[in-house]
Amino acid sequence: MDGVGISDTAAGHSYIGDKNSYLSQLRQIEEQVRGVHRMVQNETYCIDVLAEVSAMAMALEAVSLGLLDDHLAHCVAGAAAASGLEAAELKVKEASDAIARLVRS
Amino acid sequence: MDGVGISDTAAGHSYIGDKNSYLSQLRQIEEQVRGVHRMVQNETYCIDVLAEVSAMAMALEAVSLGLLDDHLAHCVAGAAAASGLEAAELKVKEASDAIARLVRS
Amino acid sequence: MDGVGISDTAAGHSYIGDKNSYLSQLRQIEEQVRGVHRMVQNETYCIDVLAEVSAMAMALEAVSLGLLDDHLAHCVAGAAAASGLEAAELKVKEASDAIARLVRS
Amino acid sequence: MDGVGISDTAAGHSYIGDKNSYLSQLRQIEEQVRGVHRMVQNETYCIDVLAEVSAMAMALEAVSLGLLDDHLAHCVAGAAAASGLEAAELKVKEASDAIARLVRS
Repeated sequence: MDGVGISDTAAGHSYIGDKNSYLSQLRQIEEQVRGVHRMVQNETYCIDVLAEVSAMAMALEAVSLGLLDDHLAHCVAGAAAASGLEAAELKVKEASDAIARLVRS
Repeated sequence: MDGVGISDTAAGHSYIGDKNSYLSQLRQIEEQVRGVHRMVQNETYCIDVLAEVSAMAMALEAVSLGLLDDHLAHCVAGAAAASGLEAAELKVKEASDAIARLVRS
Repeated sequence: MDGVGISDTAAGHSYIGDKNSYLSQLRQIEEQVRGVHRMVQNETYCIDVLAEVSAMAMALEAVSLGLLDDHLAHCVAGAAAASGLEAAELKVKEASDAIARLVRS
Repeated sequence: MDGVGISDTAAGHSYIGDKNSYLSQLRQIEEQVRGVHRMVQNETYCIDVLAEVSAMAMALEAVSLGLLDDHLAHCVAGAAAASGLEAAELKVKEASDAIARLVRS
């Protein structure tokens, strides 16, 4: 938790602002997985299990979109502001690849 | 057709065949959520966290597709085979709604 | 248009009921593609082009979900009602594959 | 940084480099929509229509991902490089919203 410091900002990333929010979202998703596990264990009707899995997928998507937004704001724009467009090229490439994975997942 | 036990038809579903496989997939997803939680805790680079979240979303999607397939095979086709097309209408409607949620999540 | 006959119903599919609705939805999507083409031609701001492409993707998704729903109601449930669960197995497999492609696209 | 022409910065964007490629992708998608229209007209088997619609959705997704990549590289990173992080904030917000729409479509 106290690992954020100069080296992190130097490394060009930081999502400390929303860290607690992400951690709590992830805890909730973990609860949801355990809930789905229990539903399958108890042979709950598939449609009800599917509804819960879809809700979980949406919650996960919200985490991804949040991380991506942070990344664009801090890392991509940050690299461009600090070191110019060319320096930001790798960051843009990384972000685009992550977006493609997200869209396809 | 006679492979469906009384309690199963009573409950209107059965995915017992793949139950252990689902349970083990869900355990793995739970591990993945915990892994992502740790990554955020340790402030791992967003792009690496995103890659893991996308992998998790794919694993979750595999569970959904499996459940849906089971549902179509057992409940939808089962209701139609046992009680005719009209009787299957509600099952089809439910399945279609679940597919729409899945596609949009 | 006059191609629907005994062989078609025998073949176990029919979406004649919604045919005109599908055709008109597809005409609209064709209009949308042409609109996006014009936007790119005129170098409209990317974000506005993207909004239009997303709207088009949603319209396309609505067509897919409609076709799938029809397919489940007529072909999958139809095969099961007419010829039993085992006969419907191939139809279920086809539908599940189509759903997987849809979810991943 | 000085590669952005006056007219481009005035318009606030530039994807001219790939313009012809986008236009040709969109022409192909238009062909695909017409193909799907013909398939529905001829009452082609739903599963085959669905396969074509999924292929079209993938082609459309490729256009979106390309536009988004261009946008991040030129507009978001461009604004940050030219005018600093705060100036890029609106661009990031716009891009994030477009990504969210894309992921949900």
